[in-house]
Amino acid sequence: MHRVRVRVVEDALDANNTIARANRDDFDRHGVTVVNLMSAPGAGKTTLLERSLAGLSIRAAVLEGDVQGSLDADRLASLHVPVVQLNTGNGFGGECHLDANMVRSALPALPLEEIELLIVENVGNLVCPAEFRIGEDVRIMVSSVAEGEDKPLKYPLMFRACELVVINKIDLLPHVDFDMDRYLHHLDAVHPGVRTMQVSARTGEGVEEFRSWLERVPVRAPA
Amino acid sequence: MHRVRVRVVEDALDANNTIARANRDDFDRHGVTVVNLMSAPGAGKTTLLERSLAGLSIRAAVLEGDVQGSLDADRLASLHVPVVQLNTGNGFGGECHLDANMVRSALPALPLEEIELLIVENVGNLVCPAEFRIGEDVRIMVSSVAEGEDKPLKYPLMFRACELVVINKIDLLPHVDFDMDRYLHHLDAVHPGVRTMQVSARTGEGVEEFRSWLERVPVRAPA
Repeated sequence: MHRVRVRVVEDALDANNTIARANRDDFDRHGVTVVNLMSAPGAGKTTLLERSLAGLSIRAAVLEGDVQGSLDADRLASLHVPVVQLNTGNGFGGECHLDANMVRSALPALPLEEIELLIVENVGNLVCPAEFRIGEDVRIMVSSVAEGEDKPLKYPLMFRACELVVINKIDLLPHVDFDMDRYLHHLDAVHPGVRTMQVSARTGEGVEEFRSWLERVPVRAPA
Repeated sequence: MHRVRVRVVEDALDANNTIARANRDDFDRHGVTVVNLMSAPGAGKTTLLERSLAGLSIRAAVLEGDVQGSLDADRLASLHVPVVQLNTGNGFGGECHLDANMVRSALPALPLEEIELLIVENVGNLVCPAEFRIGEDVRIMVSSVAEGEDKPLKYPLMFRACELVVINKIDLLPHVDFDMDRYLHHLDAVHPGVRTMQVSARTGEGVEEFRSWLERVPVRAPA
């Protein structure tokens, strides 16, 4: 059974990459830079977007990935940024990640001609989102200090698959057992030299730096 | 492609349930009660086990599920409780959950004749672990207050699939935007009447109640 399953997974990833390249072509044709925003559940992706999209100097839209519901999209609606909801629920409890085909299905609803930046908020999960390209230019990991300093070692593919690691909830540092130096050491072991940023989406600390980064999106990852 | 995929998933879940029943038969034959411990990454499953296994009045073992590495198993090793590591990594970044077949492959390494309780620490993920039975008697969700009060609404299958929700990290309540009443209201909307327990694995608050619950494991879920 395992070998059959591995082949199914390989085929699915090949098919996914083909669709991801088609998405990327469409984004490039419209001059839209695409960010894939990933994290564990509750790391603060939506709060970070609430804070950083307000005052952004470029035109952006958000594609909001969730198993079900539109709680996060509703939170972002007040920002006057176009938000498109994409649900992965399909009767089995839902998919634990976005894939290229799901994103492709949302393209007609996205105002690609009117924006320069599309942020795709992926489903909260530290495993599968790293395996499925969606046609993005860059991938950002949001990692909360409340999750513990061992996470880069436990989910290395995820931390290796991104161009920026946003270390969020630093306002909690006095209240949790989290040694920043040790975390950065673990992170460097799995992804040497990756760019990091320390923020508190809750208090606003570091958000300006993140917003500036979004406005330039300096790295373009291979499709 | 989607319909093919749905059929593959249905077949996989059917096959999984068959193996889960075989696991359950083996556990029952040995008189071992099995707990499937699930949560998002960094919710504190391992710390809760460190705290509660010390002083447990029944004989227990732990099956430690991780994508890769043995960090959590190493942490539990000092408790003098048998710990068996089960890695889901397979070259694609690893599986994001345990399934019945993985657990079955670990049975020969488990001292079933010497224990009364087996705790299976699942991979940190709020979607797929809920879809794959492993032959357990009960399922426990650990939910950290740092993840936010909306999680039951965003991952309803997971919160519906368990007999106990352990609300962890309550020592952080003064420092996070988390309204316990609202969380419990959301939880009750997706899983009316589910048993809850408020603990801080870090400070030890509530751990004695959890340990007592483990010693009795009062509910037996259908296989």
